[in-house]
Amino acid sequence: MRLSEVGEFGLIARLARLIGGREGDASGIVLGIGDDAAAFRPAPGRLLIATADMLVEEVHFRRDWMSARDLGWKSLAVNLSDCAAMAAEPCFALACVALEKETAVATVEELYAGMQELATHFGVRLAGGDTVRARGGQVIAVTAIGDVAPEQMATRAGARPGDVLLVTSTLGDSAAGCAALQAGPAAVARVPEAVLQAHRRPWPRVAEARAAAVTGGLTALIDLSDGLASDVRHIGEESGVGAEIDAAAIPLSPACREAAACLGLDPLALALSGGEDYELLLAVAPHRVSDVRAAIAATGTSAVPIGRVVPQGFTLLQPDGTRCPLPGAGFQHFPT
Amino acid sequence: MRLSEVGEFGLIARLARLIGGREGDASGIVLGIGDDAAAFRPAPGRLLIATADMLVEEVHFRRDWMSARDLGWKSLAVNLSDCAAMAAEPCFALACVALEKETAVATVEELYAGMQELATHFGVRLAGGDTVRARGGQVIAVTAIGDVAPEQMATRAGARPGDVLLVTSTLGDSAAGCAALQAGPAAVARVPEAVLQAHRRPWPRVAEARAAAVTGGLTALIDLSDGLASDVRHIGEESGVGAEIDAAAIPLSPACREAAACLGLDPLALALSGGEDYELLLAVAPHRVSDVRAAIAATGTSAVPIGRVVPQGFTLLQPDGTRCPLPGAGFQHFPT
Repeated sequence: MRLSEVGEFGLIARLARLIGGREGDASGIVLGIGDDAAAFRPAPGRLLIATADMLVEEVHFRRDWMSARDLGWKSLAVNLSDCAAMAAEPCFALACVALEKETAVATVEELYAGMQELATHFGVRLAGGDTVRARGGQVIAVTAIGDVAPEQMATRAGARPGDVLLVTSTLGDSAAGCAALQAGPAAVARVPEAVLQAHRRPWPRVAEARAAAVTGGLTALIDLSDGLASDVRHIGEESGVGAEIDAAAIPLSPACREAAACLGLDPLALALSGGEDYELLLAVAPHRVSDVRAAIAATGTSAVPIGRVVPQGFTLLQPDGTRCPLPGAGFQHFPT
Repeated sequence: MRLSEVGEFGLIARLARLIGGREGDASGIVLGIGDDAAAFRPAPGRLLIATADMLVEEVHFRRDWMSARDLGWKSLAVNLSDCAAMAAEPCFALACVALEKETAVATVEELYAGMQELATHFGVRLAGGDTVRARGGQVIAVTAIGDVAPEQMATRAGARPGDVLLVTSTLGDSAAGCAALQAGPAAVARVPEAVLQAHRRPWPRVAEARAAAVTGGLTALIDLSDGLASDVRHIGEESGVGAEIDAAAIPLSPACREAAACLGLDPLALALSGGEDYELLLAVAPHRVSDVRAAIAATGTSAVPIGRVVPQGFTLLQPDGTRCPLPGAGFQHFPT
């Protein structure tokens, strides 16, 4: 069935069946999809955070690289990751989707089912949005709203010289998966499935961020979307500091190393500049590092030190012991 | 200057200068643009509402039909109108914008300046979003968050048979403007400027909706985005009722009549099915009509009765006294 056969309102009715209708629920939503707006009552004494990310076909994704379900998952995941980056618990999301008229309804439903699949994992309510006609390629813009106790909110500003920089899990997997997809089907068949999965279905580190924030030990927090080399600069700029990264300490998975070897790429470059890891980069005062690492470990995820905050400048300590300027930015939409 | 010359982060820094940076303010925002998400603390005992609308080039707008500043205004206005449609006061908004790499930076700044111009009128804070590369045409997705006292929230559900239907101001102006733009420069030169302005710079009826809600007299509320014939059905469907519209009572401006005459169009058809009026359609119990009209009049806007809620069915009472089925839907994105 094509979108042109069900019409916009037919589509909305079908989507309401997938993601829940007007009724309120325990998430704090008192009115879901089907009116002019969703309504949300936060718990008393909580702070709400709001974030929005847009995915454009042929810029952020290619339809032959991932299923509609994966795309739905990812389009919500990148927003939940931004909630995590504030140490907030995501509550609800709105999805704006532009689709060509000839898109199969089943494809649209798969897209929303992928969002709903991730939403269910995180107790997030999909509470509305907009479905419109696309002219040239799909566009998905998701807004996520989260809440957090004011004293636990973690921003990019607050890192101090001497703080330890930690990252969760491993870096470069998503970039290795993306590189394999760019190289074509033969490369995709050779790399470990894990790197493709990392690219298609990133797992937002909400539990890890919450656990870390509850310790009170964070001085700054960001999610790694552009790539470590770029994102550490974001913390640096907002905090008025620099950073030194130990190349040898950057956690690389066996899958990333294997994929990089297959593709003739440097796994360290993937980890530094590849982007789309959606892991956390945390700045922590030295005496709180063990608390924060233990709190994150209790969620089942590792967090390892990869460098330190310095007064200024961005440096890479290379495996051979020499220092060089940290490589440039990761992905930019309008590269200069 | 082209986007490719300033880069994504250069663009964000410029936009932060236009719409305010990280700092909090009296709007309830405690963190603005420049982090992973915006943060908002609603007043105690308030309800938040969230709405998102997406505008796609060549579907919702044409760049030769309106300036970038008008487009920015309109992309926020349609969202503030959805806040009004809940009787909520808009608080802040996030804008996701997809732009071609070769877009002039001045154009992007005009777009945001148009949003900011409207935002300033309504005390709304632009608190972040996303700027990405477009593949085929511009796409703008704005999310607005508003708040409202729980007992004042007005939805599409709640209209009862016997209720009077009111609309604010006049209908069809925007559709007349759009028709002139479609007809070409000669037509544009002949129609009154007011209909073009109605299309390019709709004014969200926030004050009118708030004033009406405070009376406690509303049973249902919607903003007219798809067109009266379509939007009254939305109230009908959510409330489980029908409606009868008096064609002769639909308020038409002299500018709309004049433009329709120029273009050889029926102004009543523009008012019923044209869409993009962004006026309010209110359902009010008969004994509260004078209160609600007076409250809206006090904001400087008229609200006139145009029909009534009936148990079922959607009927148009024609100027000659005969009844016919209400014409079909207004604009649909995926027409069947």
